[in-house]
Amino acid sequence: MSAPGPIEYRDASPEVRAVFDDIKRSRKVEDVNNFWKYLANDPPTLERTWASIKEVMAPGALDALAKEMVYLAVSVTNGCAYCIASHGAAARKAGMSEAMFGELMAVVGMANETNRLANGYRVPIDPAFDK
Amino acid sequence: MSAPGPIEYRDASPEVRAVFDDIKRSRKVEDVNNFWKYLANDPPTLERTWASIKEVMAPGALDALAKEMVYLAVSVTNGCAYCIASHGAAARKAGMSEAMFGELMAVVGMANETNRLANGYRVPIDPAFDK
Amino acid sequence: MSAPGPIEYRDASPEVRAVFDDIKRSRKVEDVNNFWKYLANDPPTLERTWASIKEVMAPGALDALAKEMVYLAVSVTNGCAYCIASHGAAARKAGMSEAMFGELMAVVGMANETNRLANGYRVPIDPAFDK
Amino acid sequence: MSAPGPIEYRDASPEVRAVFDDIKRSRKVEDVNNFWKYLANDPPTLERTWASIKEVMAPGALDALAKEMVYLAVSVTNGCAYCIASHGAAARKAGMSEAMFGELMAVVGMANETNRLANGYRVPIDPAFDK
Amino acid sequence: MSAPGPIEYRDASPEVRAVFDDIKRSRKVEDVNNFWKYLANDPPTLERTWASIKEVMAPGALDALAKEMVYLAVSVTNGCAYCIASHGAAARKAGMSEAMFGELMAVVGMANETNRLANGYRVPIDPAFDK
Amino acid sequence: MSAPGPIEYRDASPEVRAVFDDIKRSRKVEDVNNFWKYLANDPPTLERTWASIKEVMAPGALDALAKEMVYLAVSVTNGCAYCIASHGAAARKAGMSEAMFGELMAVVGMANETNRLANGYRVPIDPAFDK
Repeated sequence: MSAPGPIEYRDASPEVRAVFDDIKRSRKVEDVNNFWKYLANDPPTLERTWASIKEVMAPGALDALAKEMVYLAVSVTNGCAYCIASHGAAARKAGMSEAMFGELMAVVGMANETNRLANGYRVPIDPAFDK
Repeated sequence: MSAPGPIEYRDASPEVRAVFDDIKRSRKVEDVNNFWKYLANDPPTLERTWASIKEVMAPGALDALAKEMVYLAVSVTNGCAYCIASHGAAARKAGMSEAMFGELMAVVGMANETNRLANGYRVPIDPAFDK
Repeated sequence: MSAPGPIEYRDASPEVRAVFDDIKRSRKVEDVNNFWKYLANDPPTLERTWASIKEVMAPGALDALAKEMVYLAVSVTNGCAYCIASHGAAARKAGMSEAMFGELMAVVGMANETNRLANGYRVPIDPAFDK
Repeated sequence: MSAPGPIEYRDASPEVRAVFDDIKRSRKVEDVNNFWKYLANDPPTLERTWASIKEVMAPGALDALAKEMVYLAVSVTNGCAYCIASHGAAARKAGMSEAMFGELMAVVGMANETNRLANGYRVPIDPAFDK
Repeated sequence: MSAPGPIEYRDASPEVRAVFDDIKRSRKVEDVNNFWKYLANDPPTLERTWASIKEVMAPGALDALAKEMVYLAVSVTNGCAYCIASHGAAARKAGMSEAMFGELMAVVGMANETNRLANGYRVPIDPAFDK
Repeated sequence: MSAPGPIEYRDASPEVRAVFDDIKRSRKVEDVNNFWKYLANDPPTLERTWASIKEVMAPGALDALAKEMVYLAVSVTNGCAYCIASHGAAARKAGMSEAMFGELMAVVGMANETNRLANGYRVPIDPAFDK
């Protein structure tokens, strides 16, 4: 009756292995992260989440680095320790320098501050911004 | 005993006018947004917030567009209606195309989803990510 | 099949009227706020919430003004528009001056900023703070 | 000047012991969880919180399992590690299977994603949903 | 340079129309909600989100009503006005009575309260809950 | 490519040392907290954040204790473990008794609960509160 643990490749069903294989191939890594090993407890969520991540994080109008930095900004705002650790690493791997990280954190901090100032002062939306 | 309203330029003290003038000059706009008119009720907060925003949002290791998109991503995560409207406009002014906006929202949505999956499955941080 | 609307005194059951009467007496007001009129759709929640609020917000080690300002600080952090409006009014009624409101918002903004800086830099708790 | 620690039964005042006894009796457990041992530092909050939990979590129009799963969904959304652990265990004890947990997490993740898509696209409420 | 507005069926591309048709068929409705009309500005997000929602919200180990109530609980916790309105309506359509709604809100409120009490008292996870 | 660690005084640049010296002098402490040692990785953020904190937390219309308790209330609402630990200690140092802490947590819990009740019941703002 305890919470689900990680599913390792050797214990995984064929459908889970297929996702793990695709992650390892796409990301050129030897093993998948804990996140995927835990999601593997629910194969439909594993499959859907990986397919979505692969589509959403692929370079397009925004490049991979910009996307990883936005992912990190959201994770920091939500205070998700796992996600801050994993997407911090991913952003650095995608090219985020320490100077970029420092500026990113400064913007995230500032936005969280001014979001509350706007709430607290009950600032109405300027007609120019409204649709 | 009601909540503070906007301070217009004509009614502002010299110190508030000095900040308004600097905002108008820096941003090349005819009038400041409601956000600044409300903060003007507390001049030290107005001055400090504007000085911080000017420093934090200046192009550096990240360009102005990247910074505005991160600001928008945080505001969307927090659900700050005023900030979504104003920084959505600012990001578009800085060059965010609709394709970029669409991808930005997709990443923000995905990050908010996987942040909760990581929480719910209580995923431990991989040793590789940990310091 | 629509969402529940407000319950006015004239349409209220005796148990709801008893709570409304106690709110009006305790707060020396002629009518209860919308919050209570909506909660009246679920009388046990109305009764429990009012009893809890009355106990929690009563002056004790903290006075009524300090409590209302903390309530407002939380509501601003969560972005609850109704609560910002109603507890902003309550704090002013309890004696919050505009100077106090300005400083309160500055602290709330700053705390929201540094909460994210601490998250983003993954700052470990100093041994001195840890139990 | 350090933060309050847990109050064990042997060190508790009669009023705290009365609450602990009622928790143990109601839940058929040998000892209360850490949550209650820490709240015991403030007996009025201990009493009020336990009375509220007992009333709110009792089976009614929703059964105990449905209520525990909603509690878990909220705790996952807020990222409260203690609450995710304790209410995950409570939900499993109340009958949540791993298949139900998997679907619950999928819904929680999806809702957190689409909440931000609705924010980001500034979607106006359909007249049909509005009161 | 303004924010994207809704895409109506008559103006939609064939790929967007295909999603709209599937939503209308699956939900037996005459028109899609504003949420989908706004997402239609980014067809890949429209398609992915609809496919995910259809999979996640389908009855399984949890029935449709339980899933809609969890969706509503998350939306209320996040304060997403659009989502509260639309998923409140969806939950009522799926069979949520006003008594169920009242109890749902009571649980959501309670969980949000105790999440913060656990945070504030820095309650360590009981060994029994830990993995 | 790992996340930035703490910068100790002996390894710090002159500009970082100047901030550390000012913190130590202002707070009459022998060493700065981890928060500042991590921010030191980005000297402009270190300088700006310290200058802002010093200005915002100085006694004014609100005294130092009231400000620290508000800071703690926000940190508890956001679930920032580092900030709860450090500002809990700071509030106690500024004079927060355990009775005050208990009441503070009760208000924070209650506000988080009623914020969601107001969201969930979609309570419209009373005209008396609206500007």
